[in-house]
Amino acid sequence: MRPIPKPFHPPRRLLMGPGPSAVSDRVLQAMAEPVIGHLDPATFEMMNELQAMLRQVFQTSNDLTYPVSGTGTAAMETALTNVLEPDDVAIVLVSGFFGERMREIASRCGARIVVLGGEWGVPVQPDEVATALEKFPEAKAVCAVHVETSTGLRQPLEELGRLCAEHGALFLVDAVASLGGIEVDSDGWGIDVCYSGSQKCLSAPPGLGPITFSDRAFAAMDGRKQPPPTLYLDAMAIRRYVGGDRLYHHTAPISMLYALHEALRIVLEEGLAARWRRHEEVGGELLAMLEDRGFRPFPPEGYRVPHLACVWLPEGFEDRPNRARLLEEFGIEIAGGLGHVAGKVWRGGVMGEAGNRDYVKALTEALDTLLGGGLGGASVDPEGPLPNRAHRPAVCSV
Amino acid sequence: MRPIPKPFHPPRRLLMGPGPSAVSDRVLQAMAEPVIGHLDPATFEMMNELQAMLRQVFQTSNDLTYPVSGTGTAAMETALTNVLEPDDVAIVLVSGFFGERMREIASRCGARIVVLGGEWGVPVQPDEVATALEKFPEAKAVCAVHVETSTGLRQPLEELGRLCAEHGALFLVDAVASLGGIEVDSDGWGIDVCYSGSQKCLSAPPGLGPITFSDRAFAAMDGRKQPPPTLYLDAMAIRRYVGGDRLYHHTAPISMLYALHEALRIVLEEGLAARWRRHEEVGGELLAMLEDRGFRPFPPEGYRVPHLACVWLPEGFEDRPNRARLLEEFGIEIAGGLGHVAGKVWRGGVMGEAGNRDYVKALTEALDTLLGGGLGGASVDPEGPLPNRAHRPAVCSV
Repeated sequence: MRPIPKPFHPPRRLLMGPGPSAVSDRVLQAMAEPVIGHLDPATFEMMNELQAMLRQVFQTSNDLTYPVSGTGTAAMETALTNVLEPDDVAIVLVSGFFGERMREIASRCGARIVVLGGEWGVPVQPDEVATALEKFPEAKAVCAVHVETSTGLRQPLEELGRLCAEHGALFLVDAVASLGGIEVDSDGWGIDVCYSGSQKCLSAPPGLGPITFSDRAFAAMDGRKQPPPTLYLDAMAIRRYVGGDRLYHHTAPISMLYALHEALRIVLEEGLAARWRRHEEVGGELLAMLEDRGFRPFPPEGYRVPHLACVWLPEGFEDRPNRARLLEEFGIEIAGGLGHVAGKVWRGGVMGEAGNRDYVKALTEALDTLLGGGLGGASVDPEGPLPNRAHRPAVCSV
Repeated sequence: MRPIPKPFHPPRRLLMGPGPSAVSDRVLQAMAEPVIGHLDPATFEMMNELQAMLRQVFQTSNDLTYPVSGTGTAAMETALTNVLEPDDVAIVLVSGFFGERMREIASRCGARIVVLGGEWGVPVQPDEVATALEKFPEAKAVCAVHVETSTGLRQPLEELGRLCAEHGALFLVDAVASLGGIEVDSDGWGIDVCYSGSQKCLSAPPGLGPITFSDRAFAAMDGRKQPPPTLYLDAMAIRRYVGGDRLYHHTAPISMLYALHEALRIVLEEGLAARWRRHEEVGGELLAMLEDRGFRPFPPEGYRVPHLACVWLPEGFEDRPNRARLLEEFGIEIAGGLGHVAGKVWRGGVMGEAGNRDYVKALTEALDTLLGGGLGGASVDPEGPLPNRAHRPAVCSV
């Protein structure tokens, strides 16, 4: 017999990376409610409320709006795999890791991919999309990431939605890092499939991927020549569970639904406009603080999302050892870079519950300790305020 | 502005269906622990422990053993989609809804399917599998459901594993309704891919699908001609996160992992053999009680799983109104039938935490009320002990 592990009690962290973000006690306590069945009438009442709240947050009247039983990547796969069939043409905007992931999943669907952009941190301009739609009039979908978690880039969407409608292409948008943090106007911007994740600006734990489909997207799925390769994420089948039929599809992850229900209540209590403003204000302070200390923003001005600062490290400032110290000595999690910018950038987030001046203050003090006197106005002796505990080696690879 | 829904507090239920099963307070409280990041060193320590416990419960030494970030159906899709490529031959044993679901997913993978059996509630015999393996020597996989949640059938596996090894076919097993309830000896029975769900005999909330891959399965995935159609469930990519590399794949559903970690601790504290014995004893009492009252078991003797009684309803005994009364008046959830046996069978489970004589007693008393004097020894006046509350219409479709 192997010994049984001890109960797990997570260390206390300030979650200031690009997600998961801090989760309020109200949401945590909701998850501790007793489990009930996926076909219980009470579950359907709760699910109805949850879907109605999601529609408000997505700013849509789409009927087919539900939380995918998986993370943001599952929602991305739901969007692409249900809409695209083999040999369909998909125009994919790439400005970072998650645009590349959209391209990869679209490619696994057997679609023919037209990539626009490709340079990380650089937005794709509407005229590039217009040109592509003219060159590929058969294009079924244009796929864009609203906020690139890998670079902090905000891709403007309004003009793209108009172009898609003009050319009869579906507009698929990744709002994983934007929903609940900045405006996402699904209906107003002509978005046909919009998806997100529970663990960023909505401040629920990771594990659900809210998604919404327009009538045009629904018609495209309804007219497929063959079912999608996935049954687990098959939107037209899941529709019979989340819609009126209440037909079993899979066992809904009920505790996560409790959490998202409560998290959405918090979002609506604050109000969308107030929440966006808070993200903008606190995010502005975060970026100003980082720039003061020699970090340079990755995306060009005008295209930076407020609540996720993706910044180049000051020269001579090391990634891993400093992130390990932030985590171990100060309990602050921020993220390094993905892909080819690993080791070169940091990503600091003030999302949802973490969109809070106390978080920025804590990071400021910690950074000033790390930077010592070396880089831009550190005022704290690095040997001074460290908690008196062993410096365990940290695993922080991304 | 629409009004914001009230906080959701689920009604109290005795979960005696085929899952989700009752979840202990220890597991619920684990979910209320603060969220930490998917790349936090503490997360990896917890994940290592969780994976080691899963190996014990699966009775395997397989390195690639992890919880899929989705429900049991996601684990089923992970197993099939990663192993099968277009035009591969897969032999699928069908004795109920979930065997049919395996066939459906294998078909969406583009595999050529050989179906054995096909009759619900009837096991497939080893000689049928042997004949199929001789007729289709190129068969890549044999796929079987250990315990059919739709019929309560236990499909014996030992002999099938031996046949697969002889013929060089991979052996894929659905242990969603068996793992933690009856013996599942992955290595001893020659299983190459074995998967389960968190919400049945493991008594964690729904949302995770434990899975384990043998070295032979790993080699098959490593030698694929093309990647699987799914990125979210791509086992070879996820391996770089759950294995030593700790490379980001998707944001792990951390709260669900806390829950499964604690649920597995409870399983191992009880001990596998003691747990199987408990399921057998309590399940035996459940079935005897049901037979006493005129319910007839669906699967033939010798092939019934103890902890999930799937029974034909006594003549004249209605499905929906009686299940609605059980739920609304007694707070007891049991399930009706899936597919073509909907309306004709009930499925009563004593899984995990619900594998408890108090649950059987509660169901006995409730049933005796429902049955009144009409069917087999009811001793309670149906008008007597009902709680004095409104009989709300119930939605119980499956």
